[in-house]
Amino acid sequence: MTPYDALMAYDRDTQALAQVAGRLGWDQETMMPRGAADQRGEEMAAMESVLHARRTAPQVSEWLDGIDDSTLDAVGQAQMRHIRRSHARATKVPAALASKLARLTSVAQGKWAEARGADDFAAFAPVLQEVVALKREEGAALAAGGDLYDAMLQDYEPGTTGAELEAMFSAMRPVLADLRAAVLAAEKPVSLTGTFDEAAQMKLSRHLARTFGYDMQRGRVDKAVHPFSSGSGNDVRITTRTNPVDPFNCFYSTIHEVGHAAYEQNIDQAYLLTPLGQGVSMGVHESQSRIYENQIGRSRAFTGWLFGQMKDTFGDFGIADADAFYACVNSVNNGYIRTEADELQYNLHVLLRFDLERALMSGDLAVADLEAAWNDRFKADFGYAVDKASNGVLQDVHWSVGLFGYFPTYSLGNVYAGCLHQTLRTAVPDLDDHLAQGNTEPATSWLRDNVQVNGGLYEPRVTITMASGMEPSEAPLLDYLRDKFSTIYKL
Amino acid sequence: MTPYDALMAYDRDTQALAQVAGRLGWDQETMMPRGAADQRGEEMAAMESVLHARRTAPQVSEWLDGIDDSTLDAVGQAQMRHIRRSHARATKVPAALASKLARLTSVAQGKWAEARGADDFAAFAPVLQEVVALKREEGAALAAGGDLYDAMLQDYEPGTTGAELEAMFSAMRPVLADLRAAVLAAEKPVSLTGTFDEAAQMKLSRHLARTFGYDMQRGRVDKAVHPFSSGSGNDVRITTRTNPVDPFNCFYSTIHEVGHAAYEQNIDQAYLLTPLGQGVSMGVHESQSRIYENQIGRSRAFTGWLFGQMKDTFGDFGIADADAFYACVNSVNNGYIRTEADELQYNLHVLLRFDLERALMSGDLAVADLEAAWNDRFKADFGYAVDKASNGVLQDVHWSVGLFGYFPTYSLGNVYAGCLHQTLRTAVPDLDDHLAQGNTEPATSWLRDNVQVNGGLYEPRVTITMASGMEPSEAPLLDYLRDKFSTIYKL
Repeated sequence: MTPYDALMAYDRDTQALAQVAGRLGWDQETMMPRGAADQRGEEMAAMESVLHARRTAPQVSEWLDGIDDSTLDAVGQAQMRHIRRSHARATKVPAALASKLARLTSVAQGKWAEARGADDFAAFAPVLQEVVALKREEGAALAAGGDLYDAMLQDYEPGTTGAELEAMFSAMRPVLADLRAAVLAAEKPVSLTGTFDEAAQMKLSRHLARTFGYDMQRGRVDKAVHPFSSGSGNDVRITTRTNPVDPFNCFYSTIHEVGHAAYEQNIDQAYLLTPLGQGVSMGVHESQSRIYENQIGRSRAFTGWLFGQMKDTFGDFGIADADAFYACVNSVNNGYIRTEADELQYNLHVLLRFDLERALMSGDLAVADLEAAWNDRFKADFGYAVDKASNGVLQDVHWSVGLFGYFPTYSLGNVYAGCLHQTLRTAVPDLDDHLAQGNTEPATSWLRDNVQVNGGLYEPRVTITMASGMEPSEAPLLDYLRDKFSTIYKL
Repeated sequence: MTPYDALMAYDRDTQALAQVAGRLGWDQETMMPRGAADQRGEEMAAMESVLHARRTAPQVSEWLDGIDDSTLDAVGQAQMRHIRRSHARATKVPAALASKLARLTSVAQGKWAEARGADDFAAFAPVLQEVVALKREEGAALAAGGDLYDAMLQDYEPGTTGAELEAMFSAMRPVLADLRAAVLAAEKPVSLTGTFDEAAQMKLSRHLARTFGYDMQRGRVDKAVHPFSSGSGNDVRITTRTNPVDPFNCFYSTIHEVGHAAYEQNIDQAYLLTPLGQGVSMGVHESQSRIYENQIGRSRAFTGWLFGQMKDTFGDFGIADADAFYACVNSVNNGYIRTEADELQYNLHVLLRFDLERALMSGDLAVADLEAAWNDRFKADFGYAVDKASNGVLQDVHWSVGLFGYFPTYSLGNVYAGCLHQTLRTAVPDLDDHLAQGNTEPATSWLRDNVQVNGGLYEPRVTITMASGMEPSEAPLLDYLRDKFSTIYKL
């Protein structure tokens, strides 16, 4: 066996074990009896320790040293790019630091939940300070002299930099803030009232999942507190949630997660259980979930069909016609919470976090000043003050568990979705005719063939550039949002 | 750290990983999307290979060599007994043989399923011949000069021998055959007719599980093709099945699996994720499932309560009174299939398999002669001929997957249950008064405190001897069966 073949065979088992660990995570959120929590913690830790040992095994370094990537075909080279990157990631961070971080973030997550419950940032600040310090230490180990935050970004969006994101995001911020202000000054659309049977929501939700091409033979839909997609290849499961007064939450959570899941399901089967056999980055992943959810799922054409489905399911629910329904689905309202934000305001929430976490990592912002910085920025972008920490700096779990560099991929995904959507509309000029019939196939098959099938074959930016035929830019997203919300709100 | 502490810490991770592998098995039978089957095969194989590597790691041998068991307390000595035994098991069998067996049995299971579908033993015989040959090779490696079959029994019932079982079983066989003949010559009780809503069966089934002390906070009940219990400690899940015309199948499958699951749940929490933290043997496990199912669940007192529950759930279902219901629950009928057999005939099915598989392993019986031997023995014990292979020699999966030495633990479990039941009745003289109210607690807490809590602390035979106050013997079981069926059938 060549070193490449040996390494790939070894890595295949590692990939399979990572899938097992992922499925344990799914089980924990959906099926696990509550009393099993502590035992599950030990089981997960044992899996993580097996995975870490495999990833850092001396044998792997030997194989890596013995492989001349230039002798491999394009697929082999792409595999090696991923393997070399994650091996470097795993070996650059000292084991003692990695386990210190794991222990600390487990504690910090608990403190965060407590502090959020008490609306008390000061109670969380000391442990967050420790997390920030350790993450900076980790970032330094990864950056090897370069920019800490850039090094962290590589975990989520290989190839991108803080400067590149900053350029994109600072072009978006004023446009979004102005559009938001104009929309909120306009007449409000009618809102949804009444209650909607939760079993019926789940039934329609599964219908929507199939409508968007989710393969139920290789997946399943369950309920969980937080919607998510889990797994790669031929076992990709999603969750959604129901709320009797907010069926859109259920439907659009489902469509969003189907975007993630379809990406995983549609990757070339030749890449199964290899590094290429999963979505290439968080940003590209989010581009799929968001284009399914927003550009397709919240389009006038598709919501026209959904309006009919909802009437069939729930009878008359107080919305007069498809235009009113479209406005209702896309209504823009004040709110503090990122995860509840509409398509227009969502990125403002993310941009805020990007600037703050980058400043925390550079040392320009102290944890002690974080809450004030958050509140000032929120006031500046949204025009009203944060009323309590759980509606402000304590609302997201990310920082407590050490996720720095993750937030911007949400907005990058939206930017990517904007590029893809512009090209998709050109490629499928009659798309709306299909969507109006509840037929998403022309859109989902275009995304499958141009993005999803590639898995990790190309770098994230290249993946989007090849599919959309343009260098990623915020312009298409901003055009789309301006156009859409100007129409709905008659600006 | 002492070698003992180091070994126990290492083993704890191995135990946790084994729990993960077990949960994958549960998922496969309950939740897994069908299209994930091949990928799951790879995931399971990767887990098995991690577990095998950990169990045979040179480090483990070094620790074992460095530990003087006599310096440990009773718990430590018991832990070492288990660890030394399974380490010897894992290292005695050459790796090449183990993986050859794994591959062969995977193929053989497929061939068995095909042959069973075609009622064609000849199509299965060649691969079974190979399995038998490899198992004999494995047995020889394990026996190191001793009896092959005795060596195999140690995987399921440590401490027992073929000769001991033979003595027990040959005392049972004529008694059971005579009692069976007398019962089948007597007047038949009324049988169940009509259909029973499957959702209502599941609801009552969960109620029965709680009634028998199953802790739903540390477990869950789902439907699967074959009922089973899975997991140890604080995550012990069971499955059951429903059939619209046979609600007893659902109820008694549930109670049976609750017996297994309660055993796992009730083991001393101090043994969690250690070798002592799981049921000590297949025989002791089966003693718990069978005493829950039969001696308690099919007793006159408990069925009186169940009759009321069924009337509450299903209305009048055509059984006149509790006595008729008791006879109906315990009706004895001709049949070919072990898993469908009643309490009286069940052991005759097992004894047949024990004699045949022992003869296969000793070489006294050739695979080519197996079907004829099966059919002759069946005719002798049951009085009528096997009509087709799927009702005879091809009905069970066990031999195809290499399980030799497993079958007798079913009957040994019934023998153990007989011993425990006799002592339980003395310890709780008014047990029937409680059971008649649907209160199983006096029985289940006695079993918990005298059997289950010990987990693997004592050897299987010692576990039963200490709890029942007697050397295990078939006499109490035979007395119980004779008494019960003579009453029901007015012999």
